[in-house]
Amino acid sequence: MKAIQVNASRPYQVLLGTDLLPTLGRQIREVTGSGTAVIVSDTTVAPLYAQAAEESLISAGVRALRYVFPAGEQSKSPPVYLDLLNFLARNHITRADCLIALGGGVVGDLTGFAAATYLRGIPYIQVPTTLLAAVDSSVGGKTAIDLPAGKNLCGAFCQPSLVWCSVDTLDTLPAPVFRDGCAEVIKYAVLYDRDLFAYLEETGLDFCREKVIGRCVELKRDVVARDEFDRGERMKLNLGHTIGHAVEALSGFRVSHGQAVAIGMAVVARAAGCPDRDRIVSILRQFGLPAETDYTAQALFESALADKKRAGDTIHMIVPRAIGDCAVVAMDVQDIKPFIEAGL
Amino acid sequence: MKAIQVNASRPYQVLLGTDLLPTLGRQIREVTGSGTAVIVSDTTVAPLYAQAAEESLISAGVRALRYVFPAGEQSKSPPVYLDLLNFLARNHITRADCLIALGGGVVGDLTGFAAATYLRGIPYIQVPTTLLAAVDSSVGGKTAIDLPAGKNLCGAFCQPSLVWCSVDTLDTLPAPVFRDGCAEVIKYAVLYDRDLFAYLEETGLDFCREKVIGRCVELKRDVVARDEFDRGERMKLNLGHTIGHAVEALSGFRVSHGQAVAIGMAVVARAAGCPDRDRIVSILRQFGLPAETDYTAQALFESALADKKRAGDTIHMIVPRAIGDCAVVAMDVQDIKPFIEAGL
Repeated sequence: MKAIQVNASRPYQVLLGTDLLPTLGRQIREVTGSGTAVIVSDTTVAPLYAQAAEESLISAGVRALRYVFPAGEQSKSPPVYLDLLNFLARNHITRADCLIALGGGVVGDLTGFAAATYLRGIPYIQVPTTLLAAVDSSVGGKTAIDLPAGKNLCGAFCQPSLVWCSVDTLDTLPAPVFRDGCAEVIKYAVLYDRDLFAYLEETGLDFCREKVIGRCVELKRDVVARDEFDRGERMKLNLGHTIGHAVEALSGFRVSHGQAVAIGMAVVARAAGCPDRDRIVSILRQFGLPAETDYTAQALFESALADKKRAGDTIHMIVPRAIGDCAVVAMDVQDIKPFIEAGL
Repeated sequence: MKAIQVNASRPYQVLLGTDLLPTLGRQIREVTGSGTAVIVSDTTVAPLYAQAAEESLISAGVRALRYVFPAGEQSKSPPVYLDLLNFLARNHITRADCLIALGGGVVGDLTGFAAATYLRGIPYIQVPTTLLAAVDSSVGGKTAIDLPAGKNLCGAFCQPSLVWCSVDTLDTLPAPVFRDGCAEVIKYAVLYDRDLFAYLEETGLDFCREKVIGRCVELKRDVVARDEFDRGERMKLNLGHTIGHAVEALSGFRVSHGQAVAIGMAVVARAAGCPDRDRIVSILRQFGLPAETDYTAQALFESALADKKRAGDTIHMIVPRAIGDCAVVAMDVQDIKPFIEAGL
């Protein structure tokens, strides 16, 4: 088992290994001291792992409750969030208890935001079961739900008490969901690590899970330690996301997050005239990810305007100068449309 | 003008004086640098003060938007909260902008929670226009909305960037609303300050506004500096609130917050056999506040169980040992009902 320490406003560990679910309960008891843990999961993941998690809790003397919602981005919404809060209130969950986010990015973001706001904050544990959640959304404390106007517009910075990643849970991932996570892995390589990029070119989809997840978590841990509240360097992690979120929103979330981020990375690499743009587009295709979109620059521009990374009349775009070297560029709103156009 | 510095995770000033609204815009420009400010207010306060606030913003070169919701505790609810967030998103409000909570406790709590969570946090300014908000809810960064199961069950700790209290705005308060605020003033005196208590006994409702508000803010400031996140001493500010919230909820909020807190203080003073209980009950009556309730101990107990101050099987009750000296007592859930019974 690998332990990675995250030094945020609330320090915690990311524990990474194989076959970890049976010891989850003991670990939660140690870290939070909670008497009751509420497993929050979706209709895809709960049938696979909720029972194992429950048994682990009960054997450690922790009372287990279960809240399951319909799988999919459309559940990262105000109605499901409120229903979860009401579930917690009806069950008299207190600040001495905790939530467990068992699932992918939607489960983690929603559970984290509920934990951040129920009683003004109770502890929560991330148990990522997708590659995307393991390498990205489970670490760093960004929690959110979507609003009709756009993704992640309502949320909080709230660090988990523990991230517990049992790599074997990724074995049940459908291939397209696994590829989705690969988009974020490639993002880390483009942002920070030429060696990781070269390794991924070599292995394709057959990369070593523990090694690559561990490396991505370390990279993210370093960014979060330097800029927990997203005022500077952490913005870089949004590489591909401004245009990616626009694609997702325009498609009514039929284009997955990973596919959208892949498209977004390809668009900005081309738009910025990055000398490594062909390698970036190639690796995306190698991993079965899209690098093009049919949406017009006008449609993408309008959708991107609702993005929260905007500050007044400026949007911060993350632009690759080379693999392993990206810059945050404050662009005038009026320059965004021609920039997107150049990248399509 | 009196300036009181609050040293919380985000330090800020409480500015207290007369006829301050005309200079609000300039101050906001200085403190936040925001290009756009959204005035959030209710149907009672907006007709009185929103125009003056707007004019002040515009003359300082800050764009002003206005969001007004129906006055009353029933608006401190998920639907109004979400409607406000959607209003902000539709108007492309960014992290470089700010919200202004112009009104009483409901306006401040709701606006603060919206500011805490919209885009994972944007700046906000408290402009309290009721005594209750001026002495209590506008300072310290507790924000919240209510859930069907109870008051303030959903919220965040999020400090304002500035508290701007123009004492003359209290002149328009209806007498019952002013008396409501007096319940919180008396609470501070019972908790911390025998001299303030004696002064209030002497003046009754005619106390000097600036002097008493300033004193209460200083007392609260000291508590917040020592325990911002409500893990210990800050719990004392809930004197009268566990039973008060139960009375409010049981009455469907027909009993006001101040009246309910007054009842709650009287109940715990009697239940604890506080030697000063008669003086506490007397001053409440002197200020036109109730000290009795018709609800049964059983009903109050059940309603109090949903309260967030519970931790596992323990409820923290704030118990006056004397005027100016209160204790936090961790009570077993099963001891609460007889305790309430003794205080009715």
